[in-house]
Amino acid sequence: MLVVMNAHATEEQVGAVCKRIEELGFRAHPIPGAQRTAIGITGNQGEVEPGAIEELPGVVEVIRVSKPYKLVSRDVKEDNTVVRFANGATIGSEELAVVAGPCAIENHKQAFAIAEHVAKSGVRFFRGGAYKPRTSPYSFQGLGEEGLKIMAEIRDQFGLLIVTEAVDNESLDQVEKYADVIQIGARNMQNFSLLKRAGRARKPVLLKRGMSATLEEFLMAAEYVMSEGNYNVVLCERGVRTFSDYTRNTLDLSVVPAVHRLSHLPILVDPSHGTGVRSKVTPLSRASVAVGADGLIVEVHNEPDRALSDGKQSLYLEQFDELMTQVRQIAPVVQRKVADRGLALTTRLNSASAR
Amino acid sequence: MLVVMNAHATEEQVGAVCKRIEELGFRAHPIPGAQRTAIGITGNQGEVEPGAIEELPGVVEVIRVSKPYKLVSRDVKEDNTVVRFANGATIGSEELAVVAGPCAIENHKQAFAIAEHVAKSGVRFFRGGAYKPRTSPYSFQGLGEEGLKIMAEIRDQFGLLIVTEAVDNESLDQVEKYADVIQIGARNMQNFSLLKRAGRARKPVLLKRGMSATLEEFLMAAEYVMSEGNYNVVLCERGVRTFSDYTRNTLDLSVVPAVHRLSHLPILVDPSHGTGVRSKVTPLSRASVAVGADGLIVEVHNEPDRALSDGKQSLYLEQFDELMTQVRQIAPVVQRKVADRGLALTTRLNSASAR
Amino acid sequence: MLVVMNAHATEEQVGAVCKRIEELGFRAHPIPGAQRTAIGITGNQGEVEPGAIEELPGVVEVIRVSKPYKLVSRDVKEDNTVVRFANGATIGSEELAVVAGPCAIENHKQAFAIAEHVAKSGVRFFRGGAYKPRTSPYSFQGLGEEGLKIMAEIRDQFGLLIVTEAVDNESLDQVEKYADVIQIGARNMQNFSLLKRAGRARKPVLLKRGMSATLEEFLMAAEYVMSEGNYNVVLCERGVRTFSDYTRNTLDLSVVPAVHRLSHLPILVDPSHGTGVRSKVTPLSRASVAVGADGLIVEVHNEPDRALSDGKQSLYLEQFDELMTQVRQIAPVVQRKVADRGLALTTRLNSASAR
Amino acid sequence: MLVVMNAHATEEQVGAVCKRIEELGFRAHPIPGAQRTAIGITGNQGEVEPGAIEELPGVVEVIRVSKPYKLVSRDVKEDNTVVRFANGATIGSEELAVVAGPCAIENHKQAFAIAEHVAKSGVRFFRGGAYKPRTSPYSFQGLGEEGLKIMAEIRDQFGLLIVTEAVDNESLDQVEKYADVIQIGARNMQNFSLLKRAGRARKPVLLKRGMSATLEEFLMAAEYVMSEGNYNVVLCERGVRTFSDYTRNTLDLSVVPAVHRLSHLPILVDPSHGTGVRSKVTPLSRASVAVGADGLIVEVHNEPDRALSDGKQSLYLEQFDELMTQVRQIAPVVQRKVADRGLALTTRLNSASAR
Repeated sequence: MLVVMNAHATEEQVGAVCKRIEELGFRAHPIPGAQRTAIGITGNQGEVEPGAIEELPGVVEVIRVSKPYKLVSRDVKEDNTVVRFANGATIGSEELAVVAGPCAIENHKQAFAIAEHVAKSGVRFFRGGAYKPRTSPYSFQGLGEEGLKIMAEIRDQFGLLIVTEAVDNESLDQVEKYADVIQIGARNMQNFSLLKRAGRARKPVLLKRGMSATLEEFLMAAEYVMSEGNYNVVLCERGVRTFSDYTRNTLDLSVVPAVHRLSHLPILVDPSHGTGVRSKVTPLSRASVAVGADGLIVEVHNEPDRALSDGKQSLYLEQFDELMTQVRQIAPVVQRKVADRGLALTTRLNSASAR
Repeated sequence: MLVVMNAHATEEQVGAVCKRIEELGFRAHPIPGAQRTAIGITGNQGEVEPGAIEELPGVVEVIRVSKPYKLVSRDVKEDNTVVRFANGATIGSEELAVVAGPCAIENHKQAFAIAEHVAKSGVRFFRGGAYKPRTSPYSFQGLGEEGLKIMAEIRDQFGLLIVTEAVDNESLDQVEKYADVIQIGARNMQNFSLLKRAGRARKPVLLKRGMSATLEEFLMAAEYVMSEGNYNVVLCERGVRTFSDYTRNTLDLSVVPAVHRLSHLPILVDPSHGTGVRSKVTPLSRASVAVGADGLIVEVHNEPDRALSDGKQSLYLEQFDELMTQVRQIAPVVQRKVADRGLALTTRLNSASAR
Repeated sequence: MLVVMNAHATEEQVGAVCKRIEELGFRAHPIPGAQRTAIGITGNQGEVEPGAIEELPGVVEVIRVSKPYKLVSRDVKEDNTVVRFANGATIGSEELAVVAGPCAIENHKQAFAIAEHVAKSGVRFFRGGAYKPRTSPYSFQGLGEEGLKIMAEIRDQFGLLIVTEAVDNESLDQVEKYADVIQIGARNMQNFSLLKRAGRARKPVLLKRGMSATLEEFLMAAEYVMSEGNYNVVLCERGVRTFSDYTRNTLDLSVVPAVHRLSHLPILVDPSHGTGVRSKVTPLSRASVAVGADGLIVEVHNEPDRALSDGKQSLYLEQFDELMTQVRQIAPVVQRKVADRGLALTTRLNSASAR
Repeated sequence: MLVVMNAHATEEQVGAVCKRIEELGFRAHPIPGAQRTAIGITGNQGEVEPGAIEELPGVVEVIRVSKPYKLVSRDVKEDNTVVRFANGATIGSEELAVVAGPCAIENHKQAFAIAEHVAKSGVRFFRGGAYKPRTSPYSFQGLGEEGLKIMAEIRDQFGLLIVTEAVDNESLDQVEKYADVIQIGARNMQNFSLLKRAGRARKPVLLKRGMSATLEEFLMAAEYVMSEGNYNVVLCERGVRTFSDYTRNTLDLSVVPAVHRLSHLPILVDPSHGTGVRSKVTPLSRASVAVGADGLIVEVHNEPDRALSDGKQSLYLEQFDELMTQVRQIAPVVQRKVADRGLALTTRLNSASAR
């Protein structure tokens, strides 16, 4: 259920509607938009009786939402979500957001060498794994908190924002403490316990698509995070599993315009995991920007051949510079292609106010 | 690495080898077989120097295992793993192990009605969800500990062994306390943190295959559990995600002989989730038993049309009886088809002792 | 559109309805059933005006068929199609139909050695490729007409019915001349030109499911054959392409009850191509019979290791005997499980006659 | 096998090597390169004895090709294949090749309206179906030769080159007569009989990737065409079948750099079939050009809502203009990204000449 407020509704009126919703035993999610506020209702098993709310001051209408997701939907929030950071960086705005760094933080020297290069290239986000979900229990599992501390130093020294993965509730506590963006990996996309914990965190969440997740499952995973109150969710396509065998996964770029049409959330693309092959990362990065992604997350290493994980798909530092040169030329052609985003479809809320 | 002991090796000799392995900084997993004991070595990043162990009394040979999994492999343990329970029930023996019950425990009355029927049919394991991983945050999430308590009562009253799912470390603590078998669901097959916790539990683990898991990933997930010391692992095929659209998933029955060839672990099949359609459950149950599965896990409900989850795929009680009648006729044809299990391939260990 | 005739309708009345349909510019397909005749109408782009036919003598009702397939549907023909051969063999009856033989006819001696063994085992259909669709233009492409002649000799000598593949219109002319069943391979399942030609042949057609065909596409391919007037179509599941990598294809056994529910056509399973691995053929054959397939098509070779194609998946002659022993024990458990076939759903036509 | 000739080898020497190859019972394919000629040998079941050829004048070396494809490989031909047309248009050069037009030719007026618009936009290739492979036998199957005649008029009037599909040997005869490029559709990618016929045609072939074709199968299909002597093959990615359900197929753009690395053949992308949804065609067209495709094939219609087939995915005329504007801005960023094409890997042939 979604309550649409009048464009001139006061804060008190919004507050009164929220209070009424909570009295009915549900949860209210006020979502301010450019022109009006909408209030999502969650926690209801079945129908909410609209009469209980429709008559309150400032309410334009109460809409039944037929899709299984609510808070992630453009029906609820027409404007694009822009995630904003203290240093002025954004994800979801006109600026192309690029996240770069090694698969895993291996040691202080490696991490700093890569971070320095990445910072010079003008990128504002640094990635690096401290807790690594590995297929084998006998593979390098990451440095843990020590890795987080190295990344915190990198933020201090280079002004880069830190993006790193949490793999369970314990590591999420640590990641929330040290990092700027909490990454939930593809293998945990339906770890609902972890999603709920991320929903209670005070940092933005980067949610990667599961290896065989449909679009609806992907959006529902984001809904889990948002339903706990954390609205700063960034989606990320990283390839899906198919029969195709010359790349590690099949990068499904069509999901980008599909997400932009259905949801207000930004979406990045990870061509490193999406292909698993170094020589494919740059062409697919160009394609990701051209299709309209809000940014990229790319693995870069100063010595890929000695990397403790994912070396095969990590770019050399100079390759990364070349990638940035190319995508910066393509970005202006596609940025702000609002027509792709299907905003026209959601004019219902605006016209509703004209009554 | 795998240390093969002489058929006449004493317990002291086995103990001495284990001690040496631990002194070298690794972890020793003694695995008693029908004829001899093998000792798996895990925790080594690279090579272990065989010379350090090969000369110890009772050692026949030290084998490098090239596959990424070790403890799950038939190379390490030739005989089938049979999981045994206090009441005499088994999984992995000649007896067909059938687990039946509702998707979710909804209330005392529903659970008891189904359990009574299941017990009468001669089945020895009861399933029921207390913690439900649901695609939507707004769907019924299970009764939690209250559900576990209902199932504990069912065990007391009907003598059924309880199989139920844990979704995070907290719920695993509870499940370990109340249930007989800890289920790890498909969505958590690569939740490595949870797998490790299950590996430290004192109850057997039923591990479901992930929706797009390769056979190697599936076995590696079992390896995570075993590498922590819990060797009572039961695998479960429950359908994989493909383009095919008339069943919820595509039940991949070829995995059963493939698992039996590579691993000593038993494998069940879940035709309820594997098809998602009631009318397909009985034919695919017959096929699962015919292909050689060690058992079935089937959803049954006294009132499927009113089920809070998965009603569409739950059998009516009478349909379940008919299913049992059919699979009991097929089981004798295929039970003990050791030729399918490729035991002949692992005679190396036996012949080694003849030297 | 489907015209249902009265149970007592005369041949003249059926003929008059067909004539009227053709006058309207469409095509009439009279389909005699156990109780009544139904007449399918094809060739209509959009709606046929029912009034033009409904008033004719002997017509009970005119039904709009909403599914895209008509002639293959149980809505049109309630009773199972049984394909009958001169020597009394059948496909689709209670008898399990087994087709066995080598992938390709390599020479006279090889073919006869295998045929002799197959005939002794009580099997009634012999398969062998004369025209081989090979991935590489440089692989053995089959003996062509010479191979067909060898198979014709085998029919004469052993009384086996010959099943062999046609790959284009030219080879179909030859296959129709020499063989008893015309096979259309998976790669040609949507070669609509070839399907139409097969629809004009006077021999039954064995139609294999394409590697990534949905159930609807599979049934529509059969509809192509039937729409040209050949109603003796046998479907065959042979594995679909998925991410799964330990078998050549993923055998999708759920399709068997799904076909039986939607269509009156029989369906075989090919576990040889469906797995591509010899050690999996027997377990999956058991499963195929247990799931309710009308029969099997299996590759057998007297010297698999020297086979010119598909040796890896061909059974040794003794393995085939063991397979037959096992499936003959399972068949009686599942034969005639009419409940699986959903006949109850099509009682509409019967009850219609009661008016 | 591949025979590499000296850079200064004369035509007579090349001719003599070819003659020798044919005397040995094989087929010779001389392939002139920028610096030297290579001669592919096909038709050999097993090994060719290199000694028979290596000693001939002008031969540098005889290379065993381990990949199953030969003529399509960059090992055989280092330089990109550029398909050239009489009017100066090319596919595979620096020029972006765009093919546009309706799914099917419906009538003279529709075809001309679209062609006029396409010609004005500067596009040089016109597509339109005369023979349509349709899933249903009851759908519009195309105008046949009448459609070809309309397209021939379009060539005369607007100077557009005609690209249209052949579905069997008979229609290929017609298409070869009227059109400039013979299209082989996805469903016929492994119709080997048709591929061989196309290999004997005197017009270039546009070969679409099958719905579930691996890269190797795709290249082997091209090898079929080339092995018959037609070297003007253009590949086309049009989406593969996966579990993903919000687009008709999943466009697999990684195949573009993969093809460029392994093969000298050009590759187009078809975002219309690759997505099946109009709103996704322009974003994915941008991505296709950005990833490095040699061109696009796009469905455009003057009245998409009245189209007899594929209307849902056809662009309005104005949308096509906007698409062209965008891709023309992106093309210069990526054209000539030879580094992506892995030419460095094939310098072996050049360095060989230095000996």
